[in-house]
Amino acid sequence: MITAYAAKEAGGALEQHHIEVGELGAHDVEIDVEYCGICHSDISMIDNEWGFSQYPLVAGHEVVGRVSKVGSHVSNLSEGQLVGLGWHSGYCQSCFSCNTGDENLCQQAIPTIMSHGGFADKVRANEKAVVALPNGMDAQSAGPLFCGGITVFNPLVQFDVKPTDKVAVIGIGGLGHLALQFLNAWGCEVTAFTSSESKSAEAKQLGAHHTLNSRDNREIEAAANRFDFIISTVNVKLDWNLYLSTLKPKGRLHFVGATLEPLDLGAFGLIGGQKQVSGSPVGSPATIAQMLEFAVQHNIKPQIETFKMSDINAALDHLKSGKARYRIVLEKD
Amino acid sequence: MITAYAAKEAGGALEQHHIEVGELGAHDVEIDVEYCGICHSDISMIDNEWGFSQYPLVAGHEVVGRVSKVGSHVSNLSEGQLVGLGWHSGYCQSCFSCNTGDENLCQQAIPTIMSHGGFADKVRANEKAVVALPNGMDAQSAGPLFCGGITVFNPLVQFDVKPTDKVAVIGIGGLGHLALQFLNAWGCEVTAFTSSESKSAEAKQLGAHHTLNSRDNREIEAAANRFDFIISTVNVKLDWNLYLSTLKPKGRLHFVGATLEPLDLGAFGLIGGQKQVSGSPVGSPATIAQMLEFAVQHNIKPQIETFKMSDINAALDHLKSGKARYRIVLEKD
Repeated sequence: MITAYAAKEAGGALEQHHIEVGELGAHDVEIDVEYCGICHSDISMIDNEWGFSQYPLVAGHEVVGRVSKVGSHVSNLSEGQLVGLGWHSGYCQSCFSCNTGDENLCQQAIPTIMSHGGFADKVRANEKAVVALPNGMDAQSAGPLFCGGITVFNPLVQFDVKPTDKVAVIGIGGLGHLALQFLNAWGCEVTAFTSSESKSAEAKQLGAHHTLNSRDNREIEAAANRFDFIISTVNVKLDWNLYLSTLKPKGRLHFVGATLEPLDLGAFGLIGGQKQVSGSPVGSPATIAQMLEFAVQHNIKPQIETFKMSDINAALDHLKSGKARYRIVLEKD
Repeated sequence: MITAYAAKEAGGALEQHHIEVGELGAHDVEIDVEYCGICHSDISMIDNEWGFSQYPLVAGHEVVGRVSKVGSHVSNLSEGQLVGLGWHSGYCQSCFSCNTGDENLCQQAIPTIMSHGGFADKVRANEKAVVALPNGMDAQSAGPLFCGGITVFNPLVQFDVKPTDKVAVIGIGGLGHLALQFLNAWGCEVTAFTSSESKSAEAKQLGAHHTLNSRDNREIEAAANRFDFIISTVNVKLDWNLYLSTLKPKGRLHFVGATLEPLDLGAFGLIGGQKQVSGSPVGSPATIAQMLEFAVQHNIKPQIETFKMSDINAALDHLKSGKARYRIVLEKD
């Protein structure tokens, strides 16, 4: 039996909830949850913002803990091993995306939250989706790497961002503060776009070489033709054509954050300089493993505030207040 | 002295016009125009649709002819050589784009029309922008390759379209009829989106393996998750999010045609499947040379209707009528 914190209805406070689980699948592992990060998408799911939540719902998809049990055919993980689990807890393992190492793009992939997530004492997942923590990684702060971290790291791999690139990050929050660290370690010249004066100094501590005010159009206009790669982590509408103008020829504006409002991009702004606009979700297990090693090598860590798992409702309120710096991690009681 | 056909004001009929030219620049060549294609952008410039035309204006940027004179420092071209000239007649040759073989993205590149274009008996250009026709190339029909052709060929090179890709072309006109031929020869499975029933059979003759009605949303919905690469050549607004849904994970929707209306793309449609949207203009001289060789190898030719240069106003009217199949070429009188 698993003891979890579940939403019983959209927007409801989380309540303790017991889940009967059957025998462990042959390729599944069970993890004793030691830490679980909270991501904005947990709140979106709890509040049914995307319309497909089912209740009772146990969110939580930035899990770190130890393998407590392995299925009969599990070969790559063993009991007691320190591991993490992110947005997906399983893949079809037979589609083109799975067969070519893009399991994160598998259309049958199972979101961890849709079975039940990490706001619990235990969580189960297919071995393929569970990634071992490398030696030297701090377990307490590692959880947010499994969703927030991989979301901003994956595009650097997918789109071949180069150390010689001039790059920018829009939005310095849960995702952006990790993007700054990764891009700095990647060797790039890094600019942070932020609407908050107070975050400008923090952005520099996190790895930005320059900052620009994302609400000052004149400052942005003056940055015309400056960047090879911009990653946007915000979920507010900005003047995207203005940001396109800050790209060099062949530059890319990449979205990992989004609003429901359309991007209203001018085609001429793309055509003239052969520019690109793209988006991406989380990464594959192989890329997660690469990211973890890179994070250890470069001492990249999510900046976290911690709450006890039993204080989960207070933790959710704190995240909703917008004051978290920058990610919240729940700790086993 | 050059004898040309010039627009004296926006939208005016072209009139014969004499241009005094000075000594030929050391790195320039003069070409005796034998053929010159007409492109929609010639009409846009004649009519000042983009707001930067200057009159008298001599359009024409799909030139084929023989080198009649070379500047004192020209080393790669010689008198009598059969050559072509496209959208650009010169580049700065010192910016990052020029230095890395992307002269077509040079922000100081000179549009052929802005000095004076190919609706004339002679045209001058920097040697760098003039590309020799390979052996075996039909000179009469080659002109349209220098703008329409390179515009649809260049993205295949730039974005590494693979023979195993499933691809689609939106709009079967001056650009689209060349895109179908190139993509078929590239080895791809090719689908043509066209709004015109009558063009469906033509599209198949040009290389399409399948056709879909671009105005039938149900037909497009049924093509969900089918394409790796879509190139849009149209200048009308379509339901771009619907086209995004026909892309596989990692697929690309690429624009070489455009309206002034924004693309109003949903960010979630990009993020979920790691999709990309991009645009591009013409290609570099090196890519033009590659394209010409590829066209000879695969017997790819613009389908043209010909007019005498002196009938240029009738030719422009025919293009404006939308009935040209598919490109118009002017021949020296």
